[in-house]
Amino acid sequence: MTIYDISEKAGVSIATVSRVLNGSSLVSEKTRRKVMDAMEKYGYTPNAFARGLGLNTMKTIGILCADSSDLYLAKAVYYIEQKLRANGYDSILCCTGYELEAKAASMNLLIGKKVDAVILTGSNFVHDRDEDNRYIADAALRLPVMLLNAVLDRPNVYSIVSDDFSSMYEAASHMLRTGIRDILYFYNSGSYSGQKKLAGFRAAMEEAGFLNEDLICRYSGPREDILSMTEHLKDLQERGLCFHGVIASDDSLALASVKYAKQAGLRIPEDFSVTGCNNSMLSCCSDPELTSIDTKLEALCHHLVTTLMGVLAGNEMPKRTVFSGELIHRGTTR
Amino acid sequence: MTIYDISEKAGVSIATVSRVLNGSSLVSEKTRRKVMDAMEKYGYTPNAFARGLGLNTMKTIGILCADSSDLYLAKAVYYIEQKLRANGYDSILCCTGYELEAKAASMNLLIGKKVDAVILTGSNFVHDRDEDNRYIADAALRLPVMLLNAVLDRPNVYSIVSDDFSSMYEAASHMLRTGIRDILYFYNSGSYSGQKKLAGFRAAMEEAGFLNEDLICRYSGPREDILSMTEHLKDLQERGLCFHGVIASDDSLALASVKYAKQAGLRIPEDFSVTGCNNSMLSCCSDPELTSIDTKLEALCHHLVTTLMGVLAGNEMPKRTVFSGELIHRGTTR
Repeated sequence: MTIYDISEKAGVSIATVSRVLNGSSLVSEKTRRKVMDAMEKYGYTPNAFARGLGLNTMKTIGILCADSSDLYLAKAVYYIEQKLRANGYDSILCCTGYELEAKAASMNLLIGKKVDAVILTGSNFVHDRDEDNRYIADAALRLPVMLLNAVLDRPNVYSIVSDDFSSMYEAASHMLRTGIRDILYFYNSGSYSGQKKLAGFRAAMEEAGFLNEDLICRYSGPREDILSMTEHLKDLQERGLCFHGVIASDDSLALASVKYAKQAGLRIPEDFSVTGCNNSMLSCCSDPELTSIDTKLEALCHHLVTTLMGVLAGNEMPKRTVFSGELIHRGTTR
Repeated sequence: MTIYDISEKAGVSIATVSRVLNGSSLVSEKTRRKVMDAMEKYGYTPNAFARGLGLNTMKTIGILCADSSDLYLAKAVYYIEQKLRANGYDSILCCTGYELEAKAASMNLLIGKKVDAVILTGSNFVHDRDEDNRYIADAALRLPVMLLNAVLDRPNVYSIVSDDFSSMYEAASHMLRTGIRDILYFYNSGSYSGQKKLAGFRAAMEEAGFLNEDLICRYSGPREDILSMTEHLKDLQERGLCFHGVIASDDSLALASVKYAKQAGLRIPEDFSVTGCNNSMLSCCSDPELTSIDTKLEALCHHLVTTLMGVLAGNEMPKRTVFSGELIHRGTTR
């Protein structure tokens, strides 16, 4: 399947196919759709295109990130950029925010800048509704798309994920073994990764016979606002919710839980246990220091770049790679 | 002064001048230097060029940042990108690391991507030696360069800075007024902003007659490693250094100081005071919460973008804008 076949199948000129591949704004949405559909239908991928025509590479990778000020995403971007540079690639980052439209626009911006591939950092880029992931599938028709901590089963899309389900399952099981049964699950994201974490927690609690849906609480206040998170827990307690442990989807929420317990006069870990997630710098800021899940972010990012280099070299690479997390025991659990 | 004049003065073709302006790699370093020198000598700026020729704008701004995983820089990038988007501009970010060569290479990468302007976030981009700032001056011949928290007096370079000198002067003066005289200054960066902060501390201590150079200590261990910072302070104390207060150039260093004091059995703020800087999320993670300098980062970033919009619209804009910081009193000082 070549660019000539696609032009024939789509009933447009080769120049038009080329324009679509290059993200030109001169093509109508209808025509673009026609070309995209033909490429998808006939399994046309642009790697072959680029190699076949011997196009010059800019040796530049595009990175999308919802919010570069998020501790976890910022670290991911840092590791990825370092590893790309070590491989002789430059990178350009677009911060998209959390709106679908902005994500799609940033994707097109990067494609317009002639990047060799696009890396989507964080699980916020893959949506529940299939049609909302069209912008990823479309991009993957032109260049390799790498997903960090998200999965989308499309040609030319590669996923590197942490096994969030098992990590949370293990964290909950451990806390249950220390005798705590009323564990609050405190989370702030319904993303792919967020759903896996919650499912892991639920599975462990259900198996043990202590699942209580009332104790699954979402925080939706301002991000990074530790004081607001602490207030949220105080509210829950004042509304009569009883819990002697918290498992949090993020270290900031865990840190707020430690703050809450101390203000309530509870001793940690004697009266109250907390487990965080991501093993970020916050885990050492807390007093006592946080037990937290190391999601092996650096290993994930390095592996993502290694996989990408393989894809760009034309090698057959695994579509999905899963890393195990590790529970790091510190002072907030028994 | 037009592109034609420059080509005449430099003794090269118009096509060559154009290549230099567009950052083409086809031009030898010697020729590039000749064109750049002519542009600098005759005060040629590319704004006029772009407007004069009515070139299309990509409505994209390039952002350079040494390390996107640094809490302070990550926030800055976030504010800048949000404000740019509100003004209808996309942005692409390059993380450069701290090496001069990588900074210059990233600058050229962005210029090659046809951005409308470049924003350098953080004071690490301006160096002490004038020749090391050539890459900024050269870039400013082609497009406006905005500096966040750094100053470089060159045509087409605009600076938005926080008054770090006064902020640190005020922080030290306040701690002195609470009766503490042996204040340790704990810092980790010799950047433009870092030098201003240190100078402000020195001035306050000197005026009060309590300046002790032994108590000015630089931490050069791994960034963000709170435990390593805490160890550093323990070492200082074990080597016989006596101090009952710490003023830190960053909240992470301040948080480590709180940790150190608690491990040493000192009560905060009764026996020991700590003041941090940047008023980051870490200031609320500490127990007690950190007194910290609010460097007004959001206001700085918004003003930077507003200034840039003015420059791009062809308006006369101030070359340097200085914002005052504010000392936020919390639990670690009296």
